[in-house]
Amino acid sequence: MARGDTRRALVWCGTELLTERGFQVTGIDEVLKRVGVPKGSFYHFFENKHAFGEAVIQNYVDYYARKMHRIFDNPLRSPLERLQDFVSDAKRGMHKYGYRRGCLIGNMGQELASLDDGFREQLEAVLCSWEQRVASCLAEAVYVGELSPACDPMAWSRFFWIGWEGAVLRAKLTRNAAPLDHFAQLFFASVLANETGRAPS
Amino acid sequence: MARGDTRRALVWCGTELLTERGFQVTGIDEVLKRVGVPKGSFYHFFENKHAFGEAVIQNYVDYYARKMHRIFDNPLRSPLERLQDFVSDAKRGMHKYGYRRGCLIGNMGQELASLDDGFREQLEAVLCSWEQRVASCLAEAVYVGELSPACDPMAWSRFFWIGWEGAVLRAKLTRNAAPLDHFAQLFFASVLANETGRAPS
Repeated sequence: MARGDTRRALVWCGTELLTERGFQVTGIDEVLKRVGVPKGSFYHFFENKHAFGEAVIQNYVDYYARKMHRIFDNPLRSPLERLQDFVSDAKRGMHKYGYRRGCLIGNMGQELASLDDGFREQLEAVLCSWEQRVASCLAEAVYVGELSPACDPMAWSRFFWIGWEGAVLRAKLTRNAAPLDHFAQLFFASVLANETGRAPS
Repeated sequence: MARGDTRRALVWCGTELLTERGFQVTGIDEVLKRVGVPKGSFYHFFENKHAFGEAVIQNYVDYYARKMHRIFDNPLRSPLERLQDFVSDAKRGMHKYGYRRGCLIGNMGQELASLDDGFREQLEAVLCSWEQRVASCLAEAVYVGELSPACDPMAWSRFFWIGWEGAVLRAKLTRNAAPLDHFAQLFFASVLANETGRAPS
């Protein structure tokens, strides 16, 4: 393999292992063994395990950016249909891996938020960027009249992402899509019924 | 220390370490050292690390049962006020530990759902029992007229717990109470605005 290919293979293998098992318990040796790269060559590619973790997060972010572009910029679907498509895509993804893999960002957040401020800030920044993406989608939904002008897109997007990470976690526990469906169903009902994003006074 | 006291001290120390760092990376040796118990005496108390993990979960469940009894059976507060009290109590708890400790059940679920069916089923059962508790609270809210009779208490309780675990995770990432407040605010607004627990057709 060329140097760039080897690095990519290491990062993808890390993405799989970190999503299923976590960062702290995943050994560099196992990643190298799986990819078929000799021990000791790791440091040709990454300064240390922390830098490897950062590269894995960045790889996941890039992968998700392509996915979100495909879904949220789809001209054939209305804004709220696009958010439904995002939910459907996530359901397919979790089903494909037997509900053993959730969201890398949620996994690493749960594991590392208490332990490492560098990772904590990187992971929070990713979630904020995803919130922006869904907020734009909801703002478009307001623009085309799917939601009322009183709707606060950022408030509801934030609510979506806070709860969605919980739904992905729960689906790993139930080993089925029910928590994803349940959360999405009541989220859509709520955003349609109470569009201001503010509690009633 | 008496035998029972030593076991209790080990379990509480495990509760702290597992909530902050996770199960897989927490070594039994460190738990014993912190409690001041000689190495090798662990197996007088627990068959293995898995049994220790189960005892830690049970301890957390018992602790939460007392907390929920205090909050949800409080005759001085209305049903929806009790759920607000639960949110306030959780905020105080996370603030106390600098948002480094979340929910043991959410932590262990994120870490172990993919890896251990025994833990996975135990953790899911805990969440289901907590859902029952909040569903009863919402059913009481219907009974006293705080929510409409059209409200489905179990559907909204499930929505609450799916999202709440996400909010606790997110508060660890932001290191403040904003995600807890945001989720609770829109949850209460939603349950009051759309009480059936069904998406509009």
